[in-house]
Amino acid sequence: MSRIAYVNGRYLPLRDARVSIEDRGYQFADGVYEVCEVWGGRIVDMPRHTARLERSLRELRIALPMPLAALSVILHELVARNHVHYGLVYLQITRGVARRDHVFPPAGVRPSVVATARSLSLQKNQASAERGIAVATVPENRWPRVDIKTVALLPNVLARQAAREQGAYEAWYVGADGFVTEGSASNAWIVTHSGSVVTRSAERGILAGITRAVLMDVLAALQITLEERPFTVAEACGAAEAFVTAATQLVMPVVTVDGKSIGSGAPGPVTRRLREEFHRFCQFS
Amino acid sequence: MSRIAYVNGRYLPLRDARVSIEDRGYQFADGVYEVCEVWGGRIVDMPRHTARLERSLRELRIALPMPLAALSVILHELVARNHVHYGLVYLQITRGVARRDHVFPPAGVRPSVVATARSLSLQKNQASAERGIAVATVPENRWPRVDIKTVALLPNVLARQAAREQGAYEAWYVGADGFVTEGSASNAWIVTHSGSVVTRSAERGILAGITRAVLMDVLAALQITLEERPFTVAEACGAAEAFVTAATQLVMPVVTVDGKSIGSGAPGPVTRRLREEFHRFCQFS
Repeated sequence: MSRIAYVNGRYLPLRDARVSIEDRGYQFADGVYEVCEVWGGRIVDMPRHTARLERSLRELRIALPMPLAALSVILHELVARNHVHYGLVYLQITRGVARRDHVFPPAGVRPSVVATARSLSLQKNQASAERGIAVATVPENRWPRVDIKTVALLPNVLARQAAREQGAYEAWYVGADGFVTEGSASNAWIVTHSGSVVTRSAERGILAGITRAVLMDVLAALQITLEERPFTVAEACGAAEAFVTAATQLVMPVVTVDGKSIGSGAPGPVTRRLREEFHRFCQFS
Repeated sequence: MSRIAYVNGRYLPLRDARVSIEDRGYQFADGVYEVCEVWGGRIVDMPRHTARLERSLRELRIALPMPLAALSVILHELVARNHVHYGLVYLQITRGVARRDHVFPPAGVRPSVVATARSLSLQKNQASAERGIAVATVPENRWPRVDIKTVALLPNVLARQAAREQGAYEAWYVGADGFVTEGSASNAWIVTHSGSVVTRSAERGILAGITRAVLMDVLAALQITLEERPFTVAEACGAAEAFVTAATQLVMPVVTVDGKSIGSGAPGPVTRRLREEFHRFCQFS
């Protein structure tokens, strides 16, 4: 059975879900997106995702094409029509369709709205979390506006592919200053030997992850010390534990960085606990 | 009459020219493109464009989806079907359609091929060239692989838009070192008071423009000295002349940079001559 997608007002089988070749998302990467986890058939932390979406659109001066409540209806409809119990919803908004020209199109060009939903294997995800993942580092080479969640993801594609070819699952970007910025599609964290949890401030140079923000609530509730500061690859390799956060990964243990074992080389107790507690602090809708 | 586009094996009216929402060009900016001028119903310097296309594809490890001769047939067919005497052909190749995942899709996923052609107004273009264009500078903020002609053009879109809102037509990127790299969709040049023509080396930090390369042949033939080196905004403002090159602009005089007049404030004689001579050195097919 084909999955059902939403494209500019219509629910369509995925095979018929198409956009114009002159959609600015296709010719210019002129658009933004969000990915939310679906858990127990409900969308996780949607208000936070839509708030970030609004910010991304505002930064690019793309109008919000419909009220957030209407977007919410679409995403829930996709979860239902695709029978997603555990999985994700994906939402992309671009500046719309116009004759190719770098400058913004004339007023009246409506943004394009595309959304999909699909099931993921919770079993596979849990199995990954029990093993932990390998990370490979790559030089930071993205533009400075990575705080906007745009579809200009080619550098991230190449980073993730480079990691995969080294036998790693995720890539960590490392700046010229030697500090880890973030993953190609996740935020990066370590746990120190004194039990503090460390991640880079989201003020600049990284995307302010939603899972990252929720995890900060978890840390506060569990009275675990958070240090919001950058860390180097060497510090990560010497840390007690490491993990990444992303909507579809939640809290995913990292057991090696560039082939070097972190801590015991297995998922650590702090990371495991954070993963277990995580959904208690989410908002479901 | 609707324009005719080419999409993955079919010629279609532009309104029906669509790609999957899971085309990696749409979700990841995972593709490359070329724009060629059409002059007198013939495509200008196509072998150079296809050679650059092959290089871009190779750098991203996207397979060339058909022989160059077949691509040539498509582009010529579009020129004919759209009755383009003066205008452009646009060709975009992406990594193809696959379920969304940053890593490269499995072998067997075919790259997508999309192409369009359209007429431009020669009169308008000539009128621009007679007036000259205004340029506004913006900070260089793109990733280092701008030598690959990818569709991850969002930074270029924002730069061009910022320029337009300052009353300028094109944006020139300026690096942290104070040197001009290139335009948002053109290469940047100046003419010194001693009559040398200056443009940055294409070894790194810029796209190796085809019009730029042909213009070097023109300079050699006309025995005009070329200096391949970077220049600052201050040097540009103090130069005798300035211009940009791009397939659809050819040699376009620049008369102001950030509101400051260049030379006499009108298109200069060297620039005008280069523009006039340009097509003598092109290859038409």
